[in-house]
Amino acid sequence: MNEFALIKRYFVTPNAQGAGAGRLPHVALGPGDDCALTQSTPQMVQAISADMLVAGQHFFEDTDPEQLGHKALAVNLSDLAAMGATPRSFTLALALPTLDEPWVAAFSKGLLTLASAHNCALIGGDITRGPLTIAITVIGEVPLTQALRRDGAQVGDDLYVSGTLGDAALALRWALQDPKTATVQTSTTVQTRQTVESRMTMPTPRVALGQALRGVATAAMDISDGLAGDLHHLLAASQCGAEVTIDTLPVSPTVATLPVDLRRALAFAGGDDYELLFAAPPQQAARLTHLAAQVGVKITRIGHITDDTALVLRDANGVVIANDYRGFDHFSE
Amino acid sequence: MNEFALIKRYFVTPNAQGAGAGRLPHVALGPGDDCALTQSTPQMVQAISADMLVAGQHFFEDTDPEQLGHKALAVNLSDLAAMGATPRSFTLALALPTLDEPWVAAFSKGLLTLASAHNCALIGGDITRGPLTIAITVIGEVPLTQALRRDGAQVGDDLYVSGTLGDAALALRWALQDPKTATVQTSTTVQTRQTVESRMTMPTPRVALGQALRGVATAAMDISDGLAGDLHHLLAASQCGAEVTIDTLPVSPTVATLPVDLRRALAFAGGDDYELLFAAPPQQAARLTHLAAQVGVKITRIGHITDDTALVLRDANGVVIANDYRGFDHFSE
Repeated sequence: MNEFALIKRYFVTPNAQGAGAGRLPHVALGPGDDCALTQSTPQMVQAISADMLVAGQHFFEDTDPEQLGHKALAVNLSDLAAMGATPRSFTLALALPTLDEPWVAAFSKGLLTLASAHNCALIGGDITRGPLTIAITVIGEVPLTQALRRDGAQVGDDLYVSGTLGDAALALRWALQDPKTATVQTSTTVQTRQTVESRMTMPTPRVALGQALRGVATAAMDISDGLAGDLHHLLAASQCGAEVTIDTLPVSPTVATLPVDLRRALAFAGGDDYELLFAAPPQQAARLTHLAAQVGVKITRIGHITDDTALVLRDANGVVIANDYRGFDHFSE
Repeated sequence: MNEFALIKRYFVTPNAQGAGAGRLPHVALGPGDDCALTQSTPQMVQAISADMLVAGQHFFEDTDPEQLGHKALAVNLSDLAAMGATPRSFTLALALPTLDEPWVAAFSKGLLTLASAHNCALIGGDITRGPLTIAITVIGEVPLTQALRRDGAQVGDDLYVSGTLGDAALALRWALQDPKTATVQTSTTVQTRQTVESRMTMPTPRVALGQALRGVATAAMDISDGLAGDLHHLLAASQCGAEVTIDTLPVSPTVATLPVDLRRALAFAGGDDYELLFAAPPQQAARLTHLAAQVGVKITRIGHITDDTALVLRDANGVVIANDYRGFDHFSE
């Protein structure tokens, strides 16, 4: 099977065809030409993000391909969610060491199942030979004035995160056989272990929550490199500071059983969470509770925005603790 | 320097900022947030294409980084040209084995010089560690009914190509020290050699020609994998055949000096040309001549569309010759 046949079999879906049943109406021309053609929605702007995943860097070479297909799109949809945007379409560029058809079939299944769940059409791309690398660009839509930017946080706003933090980082430590987490790994049930692991392998982008936050949150971003580093970016963009009560960071029951230092490190600086971090005025608290319930995602207030430029961490007793956590940087590890 | 500082220094340009002098008005929010935000033009659809270049596959690992930056964007702009679209914005995902700052500076210069010449804003992306890989997604705009698709060629249409074919393939053979091309390589002047080599290293996307062909050409595509293979795709999409006089394929003076078999192979099946292949009714001939002169690009009639489904090749005397040429496929080499 050659490159063109492979694309046709595994990556051309009815929802991206320019005609026929199941097509998404915004796709005027699907894959197969020099470009795809998509229609934009009046009163909306395009929200666009690109991410690259490299084997050995962002995932293990032997990662289950179906999970990998899911995750590759999920991390990009998470960027749309963080902007409050509705997913519309995406491109995929894929480098493969060999043409392993079962691998491609499984990857495509994981990728397109998630895409289909979000009505996000795979409109084009490229498959080539090379070290296993996945590059995706997603395109969504949002009303310009309601887009959730990083730079809108106001002094006095509450800070929230969605879901729980630290599970993906715990799963990574398990995979790397970190002795500090071995006890928890062996003492939990298979089901619990799988739940934690799925946070690393099959993250859920908070797409519905992001859209629900339009016009409510003053600033938002997704937590991909760890809250410590990502919050720093939000504060820098908004030119303000924050106080965060580190022991209020929401964690799963498994992470909650860990020693306090490890729990804090995983929740605050773990990375790969793909939860949303956002700021909103205190008077929106009740509305936020309602919206979160509507979309079925837990949100937790973790602190508030200050007129300082520093980030102050407090423990459960309100005592200031040292902030020696940092985010992930691809060239500093 | 970390990932974020690197992006800020080398990849954030005034034309992609959401505010300030030099910004492109369609960029509502530039790089630095979870997504960029772009405005679409009324009556236009988005033309979107993605390509990935892998070191050792698409270019030599030691390729001059400034030329590589140019070429990585050029091959994507060529896809917009082939659709008749106006470039608007692009994303870049870059995997680098090490953070070699002079390399990044030169790459960025080649990339952004070409981007700026086409008012195409770098609106986002990703830099990560990994085997040298470049993935670009370009977004342009075109009126839906005037987009140059592959599937519109009509029986009786003339077939044209722009520029000359085969130079990039000749330069590649020189680089690979193919003995068949060595004589030409050593007998030409340095200037001529550089002219040929620049077709491989610094291809010119036919953006203005593509836009000029809106509403005139019935079908178009760019020639990236070699005319033999690419023409096959156009004919398959348009469900028709063609007759091509192989000896009318436009070639540079250097390619013209080669033995006939080699000249034909390079021009018809060489690849990496990034010229446009297009079909248009014979009554558009005078208009095409005028448009080509306006945009300063030579076009050559190479044959015509037939109601067959086969591609018939003829020599200069009209004698049918065997078509044993084929296009490039990443997994068949």
